[in-house]
Amino acid sequence: MADAAVRSKKPATNKRTPAGGAPTAAHTPEEASEPRIDVSAVTDALLGTWADTRRVAREMVKDSAFHRIDGLSMAEHRERVLSQLHLLVDQGGVLRAFPEEYGGQGNNGANIAGFVELVSADPSLQIKAGVQWGLFGSAVLQLGTKEHHDKWLPGIMNLEIPGAFAMTETGHGSDVAAVGTTATYDPDTCEFVIHTPFRAAWKDYLGNAALHGIAATVFAQLITNGVNHGVHCFYVPLRDENGEFLPGIGGEDDGLKGGLNGIDNGRLHFDQVRVPRTNLLNKYGDVAADGTYSSHISSPGRRFFTMLGTLVQGRVSLDGSAAWASALGLTIAITYGNQRRQFDSGSGTDEVVLMDYGKHQRRLLTRLATTYAAIFAHDEFLQKFDAVFSGKADTDEDREDLETLAAALKPLSTWHALDTLQEAREACGGSGFLAENRLVGLRADLDVYVTFEGDNNVLLQLVGKRLLSDYAKQFKGADAASLAKYAMGQTAGKVFHGAGLRQFGQAVGDLGQPSRSVERGLRADQQHELLAGRVEQMVSDIAGRLRPASKLPREEAAAVFNQNQSELIEAARAHGELLQWEAFTDAVNRTTDDGTKHVLTWLRDLFGLGLIEKHLAWYLINGRISTQRAAVVSSYIDRLCGRLRPHAQDLVDAFGYEQEHLRASISSGAEQARQDEAREYYRALAESGEAPVSEKSLKKK
Amino acid sequence: MADAAVRSKKPATNKRTPAGGAPTAAHTPEEASEPRIDVSAVTDALLGTWADTRRVAREMVKDSAFHRIDGLSMAEHRERVLSQLHLLVDQGGVLRAFPEEYGGQGNNGANIAGFVELVSADPSLQIKAGVQWGLFGSAVLQLGTKEHHDKWLPGIMNLEIPGAFAMTETGHGSDVAAVGTTATYDPDTCEFVIHTPFRAAWKDYLGNAALHGIAATVFAQLITNGVNHGVHCFYVPLRDENGEFLPGIGGEDDGLKGGLNGIDNGRLHFDQVRVPRTNLLNKYGDVAADGTYSSHISSPGRRFFTMLGTLVQGRVSLDGSAAWASALGLTIAITYGNQRRQFDSGSGTDEVVLMDYGKHQRRLLTRLATTYAAIFAHDEFLQKFDAVFSGKADTDEDREDLETLAAALKPLSTWHALDTLQEAREACGGSGFLAENRLVGLRADLDVYVTFEGDNNVLLQLVGKRLLSDYAKQFKGADAASLAKYAMGQTAGKVFHGAGLRQFGQAVGDLGQPSRSVERGLRADQQHELLAGRVEQMVSDIAGRLRPASKLPREEAAAVFNQNQSELIEAARAHGELLQWEAFTDAVNRTTDDGTKHVLTWLRDLFGLGLIEKHLAWYLINGRISTQRAAVVSSYIDRLCGRLRPHAQDLVDAFGYEQEHLRASISSGAEQARQDEAREYYRALAESGEAPVSEKSLKKK
Repeated sequence: MADAAVRSKKPATNKRTPAGGAPTAAHTPEEASEPRIDVSAVTDALLGTWADTRRVAREMVKDSAFHRIDGLSMAEHRERVLSQLHLLVDQGGVLRAFPEEYGGQGNNGANIAGFVELVSADPSLQIKAGVQWGLFGSAVLQLGTKEHHDKWLPGIMNLEIPGAFAMTETGHGSDVAAVGTTATYDPDTCEFVIHTPFRAAWKDYLGNAALHGIAATVFAQLITNGVNHGVHCFYVPLRDENGEFLPGIGGEDDGLKGGLNGIDNGRLHFDQVRVPRTNLLNKYGDVAADGTYSSHISSPGRRFFTMLGTLVQGRVSLDGSAAWASALGLTIAITYGNQRRQFDSGSGTDEVVLMDYGKHQRRLLTRLATTYAAIFAHDEFLQKFDAVFSGKADTDEDREDLETLAAALKPLSTWHALDTLQEAREACGGSGFLAENRLVGLRADLDVYVTFEGDNNVLLQLVGKRLLSDYAKQFKGADAASLAKYAMGQTAGKVFHGAGLRQFGQAVGDLGQPSRSVERGLRADQQHELLAGRVEQMVSDIAGRLRPASKLPREEAAAVFNQNQSELIEAARAHGELLQWEAFTDAVNRTTDDGTKHVLTWLRDLFGLGLIEKHLAWYLINGRISTQRAAVVSSYIDRLCGRLRPHAQDLVDAFGYEQEHLRASISSGAEQARQDEAREYYRALAESGEAPVSEKSLKKK
Repeated sequence: MADAAVRSKKPATNKRTPAGGAPTAAHTPEEASEPRIDVSAVTDALLGTWADTRRVAREMVKDSAFHRIDGLSMAEHRERVLSQLHLLVDQGGVLRAFPEEYGGQGNNGANIAGFVELVSADPSLQIKAGVQWGLFGSAVLQLGTKEHHDKWLPGIMNLEIPGAFAMTETGHGSDVAAVGTTATYDPDTCEFVIHTPFRAAWKDYLGNAALHGIAATVFAQLITNGVNHGVHCFYVPLRDENGEFLPGIGGEDDGLKGGLNGIDNGRLHFDQVRVPRTNLLNKYGDVAADGTYSSHISSPGRRFFTMLGTLVQGRVSLDGSAAWASALGLTIAITYGNQRRQFDSGSGTDEVVLMDYGKHQRRLLTRLATTYAAIFAHDEFLQKFDAVFSGKADTDEDREDLETLAAALKPLSTWHALDTLQEAREACGGSGFLAENRLVGLRADLDVYVTFEGDNNVLLQLVGKRLLSDYAKQFKGADAASLAKYAMGQTAGKVFHGAGLRQFGQAVGDLGQPSRSVERGLRADQQHELLAGRVEQMVSDIAGRLRPASKLPREEAAAVFNQNQSELIEAARAHGELLQWEAFTDAVNRTTDDGTKHVLTWLRDLFGLGLIEKHLAWYLINGRISTQRAAVVSSYIDRLCGRLRPHAQDLVDAFGYEQEHLRASISSGAEQARQDEAREYYRALAESGEAPVSEKSLKKK
């Protein structure tokens, strides 16, 4: 591993020994005279609840048959990924969520954990697998009933039926309720007529639609007896055995994309296509032969959200994949940053290792801290998902909480991945831009993660609305005394009871590590207070501004909401950040090894203070932090970076990636070898007495 | 143009007429009852000093022969771009900088202006042209003398000699002074021996090196008579008539990259390759036949920077290209945002146009403001460049100022381009991810602009050092009285006299437009005071912290500098932002049309306040702004977005791009046609009386 390459240079770099190099900082825990973190224990903690599955999946994707090959044409890449999907079927790597009676394991948590690990092989492979089993297959499983399962699940699972998930339309992305496609019941023939009434209602961006899909789960407005019962899902065959569209079906290839070009995204349209009545996936709503509609969920709104809610696993997977892709990128960039040297340090004898630069630490270590937070938060999110889908804790409220959690965490981790992969690529300079070093490819592939499975801004707005409604519930039927108490801020900690990973009021203990006096006011409990207080006050401020709107006509009320949209999204982001911080803190508190706990606390502090620094103006304007304390936040962060610097390699090594996962020339040890060779050349040249003298040094004499 | 498509919808969208749509904001100046900007006058202002050349270039690149074709293999793309370079030669589009006696125009400013416009055709074409004529050709022109010009310029200009610019090494990017390649003079044969002593000294990332280059300008340590005179440039033939490497020369293909795959970047190494003594490009340093070195610049440091300084045009071009690529991306995203609808507005009758959402305005209009600032700053920068290179104003100080300007502006505009293209792509959702809509391709190609021709962080650090040295100069030989006066802040405005586009103290008048009382404290002069004051204080603070370092050993002094590196870079960024703000303000002040001036003032305010919002914590901590005033900055920005919203289409139309430049399906008018068709369908359905009723509405009854 990279680790070995780093350590191999140590004999030549004794601290502050000009002959052997002139580091401006300690490079390792030993040099810093500090305990090392227990790398493998941290790996265990990061791999989380389904660590075993992750290890199995990582072992599987070491096989180069799963790896992305750069430079394939779109057509070749698509064929390769299709064949990789068959390989996944053979290895049983992606069917853990399906019921045992169909050959699955009925294990939702493990399924996502294993799926997430595919990202290091090729995100195209991952997402095409997600389309097939996580969306298309999952729609049949979650929205269909036994007849559908018996008929289609085996073929879906073994890839005899590659399928598309036809929800999004060219004219309707995040607003699924407004899709234009219709499914009108014809009682004379007992068929649904699937129809695309206009161009904007073409289904679009669907994986498997351009080439490989022979069927699709199509979302359409269910109309029977002159009534539109809202969006339902239908199983619709697409192509015949020769790969030609069936009558009435047409489509287009979406062509080249910014990434994920191993997936054949495309468009579909339907011209009065008839499917049997029983092709309605009828778990939540059914139509009898005579056209009578029935559902055990009477509210059309709640029915719609229940159906959509079964598809939350897409967001869970993207959250984990984004967090781990960030880890992959940082492993590459920090390993390289620990080997590459640039510019003389001022000592005149050697060049500085990139990771020793204050700015380089700021760029990479802050993102390392956020990556840890995102990974820990993902594991808690996955536990919640597993509890709901296994039925262990599956009330309406649980499902609603899970949705909110998904909507809060997926945006943060997917944006973080793009930011981190870009910063990592820039931190590696020209090398970072080469495909052989993985960063640009990963970033390109993950780009769309921020807008698919729910546009990030739309998701955060949902979180914001949930926060507002939780806030409002607090006052329903409250008596004057409790309102007054609230106004005094006494119960503020309990306002948001449902939307988080845990109760807001739940104590998160300070870890009591020694700290300088200026930092004393920025320890764990103060970080929590600042982060949680910000969410509460933002929501309460927005609620205050929206209150008058309840008396306005709908259109004007919408305008008032619109004026607060941007800030509501910020409040939701603050909520998500708090969840990440809490998950990180819980993980730190679970740590038993002292040295590890010490270092992880610094890293958690770096994450928390980074958030506080980002929002510092808000804290100042709202009187939550004094000017004096605010003034030290940035320098405290710089100091934390310096403290963490010797542990940087350990902290990325703890992600547990091996060369078969990294596959980046710059983090393979090649850079260290180049540096060693160059330094040896200059050393030998100096010893030989034949080195030219520099004109500069002659001038000085 | 897109413009026409937008206007065509107006009859159907009368303001606040629910039947015809329920806009939450005015969509056009007419709806807002405001004067329109004079679009063509704004276009003139944006196109700037060399508007005519830009128009000629834009007309030229309407030809599809120059356009990027998505989905070509790397090999096909490289061949296509090479053939496009020949086309450029035929059309005389890129040789304006060469001397008239060789068939050029000796017009440096026009040359860059025309070059910048190539970005809309294909950034690979642009950068390969930049390698050939801006780097390789320019090295021969700027570093060589008449013999070299006569011998090689004609072939370079007409592309008979495609060449590489061999400066960067695998082990040395931004630190050119430390390259490992040596050029040792052998007086016995009157030859230089070019040699690569170790792997890290391979030349790397060189355009034209992998395939097409038959010669290179190679930067190497010039060694003669046992003395190393530092980095000089040598003309070195690379390949024979069959495209095979000449003896002693080897190389590798850099392979696939994150973008710019139409360029054959590669690596080169030299094994004791001999070139005639006269292949040294000897304008700034020469070696006589007997090996005696001579130069009219006695200081090796100044000589090195003078040589490198002749290559500043790369940074000028990237600055302009990045600014205009941002304009291209925003034209696509804002045009689409003015046509695409999503989610019901609350009125129940129609969906909201994306640009009406507060968040969408925040995302796109703030970046539109920055793009205007970057374009205006680029024109001033280009004027300065032209003055230096034409000899009109070419003192050492002018060159130094130009370098600093380049180092300040190129980072800001190139980062801005990536940020803007990404936000534009996300704002267009799934459509934005399709190659056919240009945004992902442009972003991928421009990615490397932030690290090549000087890594952005390294450049900003240079600016920071210049600011510190200007600051220190102020105190040289100052008497106690003037120091005291400085301490009182009386002369602070004059501290930084050289590094800007203009004197710091130079008055920038407020425009006196009426404004609400809360905004009165945030008008032009206050914006300027806040922005300029921040640069000054940051520099003075850092200088204060660095002062003790002057008494420390070099290594410890370097450590102190390192602790301040991150903030020094921030100070440099603040300086660049100030320059952009000043250029924007000057452009507003030059505007004569009242309506235009009004709207551009809002846009400039949006830019200025955006900067102040970004750094608000700093202003609060340093007591530069009151908490009350700080609290209104964000809402003022939201209000400005609302005011600018009706002018959004005009402001992007003013960039002057036509469909042949945009080439994005979503901004072609196709989206408007889809929306119109969908709305007509629902209207007709409602009129027919056959529309299904919704279950939801039945339940309400």
